[in-house]
Amino acid sequence: MALVVQKFGGTSVADPDRIREVADHVARTRRHGSDVVLVVSAMGKETDDLLRMAKEVSNTRPGREMDMLITAGERKATALVCMALADLGVPAESFTGSQAGFITDTTHTNAKILELRPDRLRDSLAAGKVPVVGGSQGVSTGRDVTFLGRGGSDTTAVALAAALNADSCELYTDVSGVFNADPRIVQGARRIDRISFEELLEMTATGCPKPAMRSVEFARNHGVKLHVRSAFTWEPGTWVVEEDPDMEHAIISAITHDASEAKITVTGLPDEPGIAAKVFRALADQDVNVDMIVQNVSDHGVTDISFTVPFDDVERSMTVLRPMCDEIGGSHEITEDSGIGRVSIVGAGMKSNPGVAARMFETLSEHGINIEMISTSAIRVSCVVRQDRLEDAVVALHGAFELDRPVPA
Amino acid sequence: MALVVQKFGGTSVADPDRIREVADHVARTRRHGSDVVLVVSAMGKETDDLLRMAKEVSNTRPGREMDMLITAGERKATALVCMALADLGVPAESFTGSQAGFITDTTHTNAKILELRPDRLRDSLAAGKVPVVGGSQGVSTGRDVTFLGRGGSDTTAVALAAALNADSCELYTDVSGVFNADPRIVQGARRIDRISFEELLEMTATGCPKPAMRSVEFARNHGVKLHVRSAFTWEPGTWVVEEDPDMEHAIISAITHDASEAKITVTGLPDEPGIAAKVFRALADQDVNVDMIVQNVSDHGVTDISFTVPFDDVERSMTVLRPMCDEIGGSHEITEDSGIGRVSIVGAGMKSNPGVAARMFETLSEHGINIEMISTSAIRVSCVVRQDRLEDAVVALHGAFELDRPVPA
Repeated sequence: MALVVQKFGGTSVADPDRIREVADHVARTRRHGSDVVLVVSAMGKETDDLLRMAKEVSNTRPGREMDMLITAGERKATALVCMALADLGVPAESFTGSQAGFITDTTHTNAKILELRPDRLRDSLAAGKVPVVGGSQGVSTGRDVTFLGRGGSDTTAVALAAALNADSCELYTDVSGVFNADPRIVQGARRIDRISFEELLEMTATGCPKPAMRSVEFARNHGVKLHVRSAFTWEPGTWVVEEDPDMEHAIISAITHDASEAKITVTGLPDEPGIAAKVFRALADQDVNVDMIVQNVSDHGVTDISFTVPFDDVERSMTVLRPMCDEIGGSHEITEDSGIGRVSIVGAGMKSNPGVAARMFETLSEHGINIEMISTSAIRVSCVVRQDRLEDAVVALHGAFELDRPVPA
Repeated sequence: MALVVQKFGGTSVADPDRIREVADHVARTRRHGSDVVLVVSAMGKETDDLLRMAKEVSNTRPGREMDMLITAGERKATALVCMALADLGVPAESFTGSQAGFITDTTHTNAKILELRPDRLRDSLAAGKVPVVGGSQGVSTGRDVTFLGRGGSDTTAVALAAALNADSCELYTDVSGVFNADPRIVQGARRIDRISFEELLEMTATGCPKPAMRSVEFARNHGVKLHVRSAFTWEPGTWVVEEDPDMEHAIISAITHDASEAKITVTGLPDEPGIAAKVFRALADQDVNVDMIVQNVSDHGVTDISFTVPFDDVERSMTVLRPMCDEIGGSHEITEDSGIGRVSIVGAGMKSNPGVAARMFETLSEHGINIEMISTSAIRVSCVVRQDRLEDAVVALHGAFELDRPVPA
């Protein structure tokens, strides 16, 4: 008997009607001959509501208590889904992360899974039931309730698929799969039928919102077959698979973009060994999430360093940098620029196709879009541009690399 | 160091402001030199909201899932209270019923406590923290989440006070204690300063809404000092104590009333041994909660039986009675009357004061209030009257027994 892990996000269980739809979907999957383990997130915007309530009540908000509060959301959803399944004659049992066997570290609000012991889920399956597991939660080695962080339900589902040796893990979202560009921006955006873990990882790292990057990494490391599909239709979505060397690649698989970062530039630093090290060590120690880095060495013995950080980290970055730069000395200047955006092209095909980066730069310049920073990986090229030209850049590149055309099967 | 268990109900934690007030209250108790274990219910009307949501989602609503759903309410409240305490510099830790060590049977939605192992609470106290426990919940011997039922938070608090050997258990409500009649009906209703467990039990059994009867029984059986008081003032409330034989009793301690029951009468049953047994065995087998029972033997070899049941049990009672009476035979008739109310006088003093019942009956007749049924215990007399005269009866008896006068200290 096949076993599939199905994960439904908050929008899919936002109200009683949606919850009954999810139950129908599970019942139908069982009729088609598969056992199902279900993972659900909190209903609709409940997690946000709980966060708001916490802010109204307290300024300190200890992590341990935040996790106790937030995880109540998934708990409610699992119970309600089980009730809807019971109405359909499908026996189901809800499980908290702790009951499902998720042992985590003690890093509250963003815990890491240390071990997974899904014994109770196995018993539930053996008894012909559907285990319904609360997403993004577990119990710490200190026996406290922990939350795996936003988007953690995808990780919960993938981890269960790996531990239970499921045939596949289906991540249901409000779109019908992974697209080769944001459909809200690019008319010709197409759903990708098959994509490699590596490419999807680069995409999620550069702005593709779903699935959560962490879950994709987990799936790759444990060889879990991922299927990203729509919660509202039965049409196949995007299969995430092992890279197949014989696979005929589109040169570029997708265009991604991200407008959630700011650029920080430090100019006039003495051009000495260890300067960059000093800067980024200091930032790392403050958990600043540095992304792109560019360093220009001028010919006056001074150097400029630019890097991007999430908006939330800008203030922390500045408070770290100012005293440190003073200490370093030199007639430096620190500037912050929130008006930037990043556009990226991702594709395993570019490895064997030189000149892809060049074509990207040409395309942008043809459209009069200035490039401020560049960073690359083996299968990705990213450019920082003005935010007000970001969407133009996405559209231009989508056309230039002919991503509106169907790929050869 | 003194240890006090404080329980706050839903109204006391209904919103962020109230939650902060509760935190202030706890902080102040600690400054006065007592360790505190806190028990909280779900915020405001959340439990009702969750029940409504479940009804919208499902018709079956398995008990196991209802408990998983409902207990999310207290869980949120405990976490928020801990955050508010953190703001005041009071270290606090939230605990689910399971974490607090409440082992229950597997009777979902109304579980019974089998064992209490509050090791984690002891550790928390030893570390100078305030353990905040979710009320009315535990974990079953089957490792499932269980709910102790409505009003279960009082029981949670009393059970913890007993297990932790607390100096007292304070039950905070929205009124300032236990009153000798419903203040909304009787102007002269007075708060009772001290009352015996036995009297309070009779009161809760005959309409006094708080505290929950189950918690009073538990407190009596384990010798827990109960203090029922207002969450919004610091004035002392009602102390519930062991009966003191030397205590000078008011003859009557309180007038209670209850309009939540209906009267069912079966007339014309053959007057044979075992008839009543047949009737009430059948009802008991259907978990019908029969309260008062009166049987009149007429002189024509037939008998009439009247009894009261909660409104919710009326329909079930009728479906049990009809076929059974046919089987018994006789020209019987079954009537149902929802227009009744019960007024009771409660007082340990009546034991040593004959004629109390007589005075009650006289008082009612003086006010032209007809008595339909009577039942008594050693310290209680109850009369069923027309519901539209119930409040008149309460007021009349409160006056007749001079309950508006202060009792001798």
